[in-house]
Amino acid sequence: MRIPRHIGVIPDGNRRWAQKHNLNKEEGYTYGLGPGLELFKLCQKEGVEELTFYGFTMDNTKRPAVQTKAFSKTCVEAVKMISREDASILVVGNTETPMFPKELIPYTKERKKCGTGGLKVNFLINYGWHWDLSNLNQNESRSKKGIISSLKSQNVSRINLIIRWGERRRLSGFLPAQSVYSDFYVVDSYWPDFKKEDFYDALRWYAKQDVTLGG
Amino acid sequence: MRIPRHIGVIPDGNRRWAQKHNLNKEEGYTYGLGPGLELFKLCQKEGVEELTFYGFTMDNTKRPAVQTKAFSKTCVEAVKMISREDASILVVGNTETPMFPKELIPYTKERKKCGTGGLKVNFLINYGWHWDLSNLNQNESRSKKGIISSLKSQNVSRINLIIRWGERRRLSGFLPAQSVYSDFYVVDSYWPDFKKEDFYDALRWYAKQDVTLGG
Repeated sequence: MRIPRHIGVIPDGNRRWAQKHNLNKEEGYTYGLGPGLELFKLCQKEGVEELTFYGFTMDNTKRPAVQTKAFSKTCVEAVKMISREDASILVVGNTETPMFPKELIPYTKERKKCGTGGLKVNFLINYGWHWDLSNLNQNESRSKKGIISSLKSQNVSRINLIIRWGERRRLSGFLPAQSVYSDFYVVDSYWPDFKKEDFYDALRWYAKQDVTLGG
Repeated sequence: MRIPRHIGVIPDGNRRWAQKHNLNKEEGYTYGLGPGLELFKLCQKEGVEELTFYGFTMDNTKRPAVQTKAFSKTCVEAVKMISREDASILVVGNTETPMFPKELIPYTKERKKCGTGGLKVNFLINYGWHWDLSNLNQNESRSKKGIISSLKSQNVSRINLIIRWGERRRLSGFLPAQSVYSDFYVVDSYWPDFKKEDFYDALRWYAKQDVTLGG
């Protein structure tokens, strides 16, 4: 089976899941940690080379404080959780606003080898598509390579497959430059209800897609 | 029903349609003209304010000459066809390479009122996502508005709904900045097989989506 080199994950639906289970909205995020670890291990097993999780965006931080605290805390826990595995971690996001969790600063400078390294895992934390593009330099960026190399997210490679949980069919600002040719697969169930089969369904669907890159 | 203000259209599958009908690949494009006019009229009827057609990209021009000539000719005919209607037309694309059809230059300077004007129709012709972003200025573009206003496609507004015909689930470089929060609807059938019901199915689906913009 043709395996995507780089998978992007939009783990949406945590708040809706919480409501469905009679919890407060902000209580949903923590139920996404287990699925994150399981998906990471499946990617390792199948030989995926790079995995990017959509943590939270600068737009998301306009939500009520009880929610922003909860998703920020969960993102910090997610990075720590993966740092105990064999992985090579990079956190990409705007470190210059107060919403960026200080504990994650060490992961933003350069990719950090954890355990024996291996699978590259990127977390977008306090990310904004406009922030990502705000570094482009008119004089150097006429080519695709020029654009990519002047992004804030320049160390995140082109994405082959994006999987979004939670039914919505939109990118919500997820890495606009690296996503231009990504195949986009939507799982209807909420992220905390992640099942191994969601991942394999997405892989089987991806394997059937052709790759043209516009040619 | 909640009607999208701005609809983006990716009219894909012309070549596959041609092959299915025992025609040469390049013969498929012309069968997309009728659907384009029909879709335009449905948008008029339903009060859509802006409609953007994905014509062809700079990447597409690397295809065999017999195909590039055919799709370029069809795009010119499409613009002429809509110019005989009540519409306000803008062509957005890189006019500096030989592949840009000279006849369309007058539509690139400013939006051109045809008939009594009305529905804004944009055609992306010899467009490239990297070309679109190549004008960003590091000093002015820190905000979303700053980014949008320094795009080459700055006169194309944010897109609410993207409809892609031809089964593929990817944006293929379609207006990365204006598409960040677009809802993305895919029709499995090929563009020349366009049916009125495809449009209404997409509208009904769109009406059920919520609009959060990350908040």
